[in-house]
Amino acid sequence: MEMVSRQPLLDVLSGRRSERTPVWMMRQAGRYLPEYRELRARAGSFLDLALTPEYASEVTLQPLRRFDFDAAIVFSDILIVPHALGQTLSFVAGEGPRLAPAIDAGNLSTLADTLDRDIVARVYEAIARTRAALPKTAALLGFCGAPWTVATYMIAGQGTPDQAPARLLAYRHPDAFGQLVDRLVTASIEYLCGQFEAGADAVQLFDTWAGVLPPEEFARWCVAPAAAIVAGVRARIPNAKIIGFPRGAGMNLVPYLEAVPVNAVSIDWMTRLDYARSELQTRRAVQGNLDPLALRAGGAALDYSVDAIMAALGDGPFIFNLGHGILPDTPVAHVERMLARVRGGR
Amino acid sequence: MEMVSRQPLLDVLSGRRSERTPVWMMRQAGRYLPEYRELRARAGSFLDLALTPEYASEVTLQPLRRFDFDAAIVFSDILIVPHALGQTLSFVAGEGPRLAPAIDAGNLSTLADTLDRDIVARVYEAIARTRAALPKTAALLGFCGAPWTVATYMIAGQGTPDQAPARLLAYRHPDAFGQLVDRLVTASIEYLCGQFEAGADAVQLFDTWAGVLPPEEFARWCVAPAAAIVAGVRARIPNAKIIGFPRGAGMNLVPYLEAVPVNAVSIDWMTRLDYARSELQTRRAVQGNLDPLALRAGGAALDYSVDAIMAALGDGPFIFNLGHGILPDTPVAHVERMLARVRGGR
Repeated sequence: MEMVSRQPLLDVLSGRRSERTPVWMMRQAGRYLPEYRELRARAGSFLDLALTPEYASEVTLQPLRRFDFDAAIVFSDILIVPHALGQTLSFVAGEGPRLAPAIDAGNLSTLADTLDRDIVARVYEAIARTRAALPKTAALLGFCGAPWTVATYMIAGQGTPDQAPARLLAYRHPDAFGQLVDRLVTASIEYLCGQFEAGADAVQLFDTWAGVLPPEEFARWCVAPAAAIVAGVRARIPNAKIIGFPRGAGMNLVPYLEAVPVNAVSIDWMTRLDYARSELQTRRAVQGNLDPLALRAGGAALDYSVDAIMAALGDGPFIFNLGHGILPDTPVAHVERMLARVRGGR
Repeated sequence: MEMVSRQPLLDVLSGRRSERTPVWMMRQAGRYLPEYRELRARAGSFLDLALTPEYASEVTLQPLRRFDFDAAIVFSDILIVPHALGQTLSFVAGEGPRLAPAIDAGNLSTLADTLDRDIVARVYEAIARTRAALPKTAALLGFCGAPWTVATYMIAGQGTPDQAPARLLAYRHPDAFGQLVDRLVTASIEYLCGQFEAGADAVQLFDTWAGVLPPEEFARWCVAPAAAIVAGVRARIPNAKIIGFPRGAGMNLVPYLEAVPVNAVSIDWMTRLDYARSELQTRRAVQGNLDPLALRAGGAALDYSVDAIMAALGDGPFIFNLGHGILPDTPVAHVERMLARVRGGR
């Protein structure tokens, strides 16, 4: 019997000492890889790629073939949940996602009560296929968008620079907005449990737009729903490993960790490393936080940034990652350089 | 002899107890006012409005005629400085500002050494006209953009969602980027001194995009230049009153205040009020921080937000303001409600 998991990422999430600092990158299955662009061109639309299990699984595995990463993250999209609740999701080339019809206080009841089985089963199948093909030493991550962030798209019908439509609805109709968030909490619990049951080793909760909210709104619309999701998932899967990413939370990261029992917190590149070490890593494992633009820039800026992160956080429970998704025009050679630098550092 | 200034805003900036909590709003001279829209339509372009002293002065005075504000801020734009250094500034309807040619590591030397006198003299004349017409109890504010924020537009040639072009140049060519920042520090000192000499009672330094930088880059490109500007202005005008606004600085606000001897710090709506009270107001006067969307939403959300700010900060050295500029579609009645609520609170 092997008592050590030999999955460095799961070791960190389980509070065990890992053999090496685990590394993966947000959006590591993506456009900066020529093999991704090739498959993307064959698949048709982005949605066809994400919702065809053999394609999604293949794209998920691509970065692991090229780089010595410690985790794969299933290729999918945070808007699969609203899509599976009845909003029509489409991706307009060069303009990003569209959800129709937009949700407001008057049409909340048009959303389905449960996730469309046909849609989410495709994601679960992609996870099962990927887990079967993935080396045992690599962890497989599932994910979903956090309710606040998903709601910003559902209400605007698209991405918005300042998330004003959702923030305005939350100010004007907090009860209706709360009902939408509650609906998303329930759906997220179901969806994440389904991902675990399909073979995910851990999941990440992406709250990409957490940073635009005032502290009390952040507590209400980001912290409380995240705590409810973690509790709901663990009621079904007691030892579920969950990483929280309230991007832009800044000085609200400690209140977040005090209320949300995630196994690790992912931090953006604006977070101070001394704060992450003294206030966050003392409470939970930390993941992050290389500036994606430092990775894109390469050279001395990249080396310096990697070294600073490893010096501050490398000795504690730590997962090396970016502070946000890799940029599409990042040279592959820069990823190799980053990885060599992290491995050399420990 | 009157020893009390009877300008509540200057009292706060001078460390005196003010008769009432001073109030003004960022972008208070702007599109939410029908009288602004009327004059804007007559003036021609936005730039014609800003650079014609009688128009700029009139627009500056408009909100003071309507609301019992304690300060006017000269109607201008943070991109006047690059315009006066030789970049051609234009405003494309519905798309925002354009600066041409874009600046990169290779064409820095095309910028002028000093500000074009004809351009900045128009701003100074607008200030002189406004000060002459403004009630003595109201303060007149000048302003400029901080070097980092201004550089993001100079390098991209326009606004960008993530300020990537400037951040990338700073990573790849820190020496060239530093030369641009030094140039802007010198120009900002000259420009702010000119505004004081024309009649400004205080000035604000807007670092709108400070929040996208990692902490060490923030220290290098936001904190150090702000400190140099404050020192440079005070070398010529010893008691110059200066408000700093490093928007999005979050947990970097204390390091900012430790290094930059501004008289007050303006905070955005994401800043925790308990932190502002315990960590910032103990060091300097604080200005802020109503969410412009709470003002736009009105009703209970507005009342609650105003009350929370006044309860946390109203007893200390404090200037009531928004956390960023007022949104163009904000009803005038909401501004009246906000003002009544602040006045009722003290």
